[in-house]
Amino acid sequence: MNDVAAAAGVALKTVSRVVNDEPGVNAATALRVKAAIDRLGYRRNDGARTLRRGRTASIGLVIEDAADVFYSSLSRAVEETALHHGCLLFTGSSQEDAARERDLVLAFCARRVDGLIIVPAGTDHTYLAPEFEAGTRAVFADRPPGAGCEADVVLSDNAGGARAGAAHLIAHGHRRIAFLGDLPRIFTAAERLRGYREALAAAGLPYDEGLVAMGPADPARLRADLARLLRAADPPTALLTGNGRTTVETLRALASITGSATGAFVEGVRPGLGGLALVGFDDFELADLLGVTVVAQDPARLGRTAADLLFLRLAGDDGPVTRFELPTRLIPRGSGERPPPPRRDHP
Amino acid sequence: MNDVAAAAGVALKTVSRVVNDEPGVNAATALRVKAAIDRLGYRRNDGARTLRRGRTASIGLVIEDAADVFYSSLSRAVEETALHHGCLLFTGSSQEDAARERDLVLAFCARRVDGLIIVPAGTDHTYLAPEFEAGTRAVFADRPPGAGCEADVVLSDNAGGARAGAAHLIAHGHRRIAFLGDLPRIFTAAERLRGYREALAAAGLPYDEGLVAMGPADPARLRADLARLLRAADPPTALLTGNGRTTVETLRALASITGSATGAFVEGVRPGLGGLALVGFDDFELADLLGVTVVAQDPARLGRTAADLLFLRLAGDDGPVTRFELPTRLIPRGSGERPPPPRRDHP
Repeated sequence: MNDVAAAAGVALKTVSRVVNDEPGVNAATALRVKAAIDRLGYRRNDGARTLRRGRTASIGLVIEDAADVFYSSLSRAVEETALHHGCLLFTGSSQEDAARERDLVLAFCARRVDGLIIVPAGTDHTYLAPEFEAGTRAVFADRPPGAGCEADVVLSDNAGGARAGAAHLIAHGHRRIAFLGDLPRIFTAAERLRGYREALAAAGLPYDEGLVAMGPADPARLRADLARLLRAADPPTALLTGNGRTTVETLRALASITGSATGAFVEGVRPGLGGLALVGFDDFELADLLGVTVVAQDPARLGRTAADLLFLRLAGDDGPVTRFELPTRLIPRGSGERPPPPRRDHP
Repeated sequence: MNDVAAAAGVALKTVSRVVNDEPGVNAATALRVKAAIDRLGYRRNDGARTLRRGRTASIGLVIEDAADVFYSSLSRAVEETALHHGCLLFTGSSQEDAARERDLVLAFCARRVDGLIIVPAGTDHTYLAPEFEAGTRAVFADRPPGAGCEADVVLSDNAGGARAGAAHLIAHGHRRIAFLGDLPRIFTAAERLRGYREALAAAGLPYDEGLVAMGPADPARLRADLARLLRAADPPTALLTGNGRTTVETLRALASITGSATGAFVEGVRPGLGGLALVGFDDFELADLLGVTVVAQDPARLGRTAADLLFLRLAGDDGPVTRFELPTRLIPRGSGERPPPPRRDHP
């Protein structure tokens, strides 16, 4: 515990309070202590703790889709933290449906979960008010709650990440950068679009609506949008894709549009990007082998931080509502560092 | 209950049936009624119900790792089926640790789940006997229970899939085929090794232990095993990889061993397989773009079938213990259809 105190730069008493879930430590400090504990591999004994608390020792997690790799990583991290606190985990997928989010949350509450971690699909969380009054705690993750709902939230720096991705393409000479994002009603999609616009503005480049295509990561939709973009009189020389699924489906769509066969890795055929540069928001499996530059979020850290915050609240932390924003990281791998082709109309 | 009936637009009798878990209400209607109950803040006393009916309308799922795409797909399918039956889902990851599997299962049982779906990490399930006697039902998925434990199980045809994969490589002229599998104590790994051996035997080819490397899908382990295989006097001309994670790490290891740069897809550099043919067990994201031939399992169908079976049992089906085996599917994409190089020692 002395090592933890030194690593976190806090008093020994503070570490003890965090470890024993006692009040009197603010959320930011407690998270710093927990980070130090994780780094140092310190593990307290959980068994007795659960028995001591008058709780059901379960929490509920609502994500968008348990089969999506972003959310399954987040979910796994929440599970680890919950088990660490002797808590079991209910999970449910909202499928981006506000009614289903609410039904799942209320079903968890009916099972008397101690707390909730919610990736909200909807923007109206007034349904939670009676649960909050009954003492249930909730932390929102990935997206904030709707207006009027006062709750802790842990986000990625979506705007900052998209800004960095677009700025990276601009720095490599691109002036016509298309943005392919998710439905603009989704908080993260709107934030990433904002980051893209800010990067253009910072570079003195105009915002061209014709270069923006927002919608679900549906293969047919993306193929149609890409075909339209590439047929335009002044087509983009680079793409910024707004999430992992969109990036993957964009790679597929480009392979079919540019006529370059699939199997590039095995057969060494010509590139599948048709000369375009690409930066994708979200890292994904094999992006390294494919050479795709990404702006990486850390979904496991997102889940872990949300869960840490929830357990602090359950331990009695009544500090003001907190909003954490986790940084993103640009990982250059080739696709985002290609210059635009020389322009024939400006010799 | 009148308010619920009005809000859900159903007869009072229907609400009563849903509340008392009686048959005769279709799933969509039942969920609508449950949603109306939740919206109106009507709370039946869960405790009393549990005692009366022996049901909590929850099931527990233990998988190997919620963040692994195979298990997250399986989990998502179980969740869908559970919700369809008005049931919530506890999930937990065993991390291939038999003690943790048992702890999770017993923790779910302590929460009085109606039933369990277990991907077992261990091979001793005598700890379940008291739970079975207490009326808890369990279905095993992906792997069978340990000896002496009588329970339903849903598997993929692991041996048949591996046999088909090896036979495919043999049909394309390969005689020296290496098998890279998971730890042989894992049921699926042992079954796939058996399928590989059977394919060799059926083609009159010798089984060469020097061509088999079993172990965790650890990057360093795979790199070392591949380097050893490729340095041998009579190296393999083809690889059969034993699961999705192993395939992905093998692709990475080959790219580093053969010195072919990553970024193949984007830059069109030379092939990353160093002339080897490859068939992977398990499909994976972007295997299509990479041109990797696979033997695909259907994890969602595995989860759905296990959950369907569990709910049949919970509805009172007392038929004999069942063992389902789901077929696999070979998907040719290029890497498994390359002939071996001409042999210089047999001109």
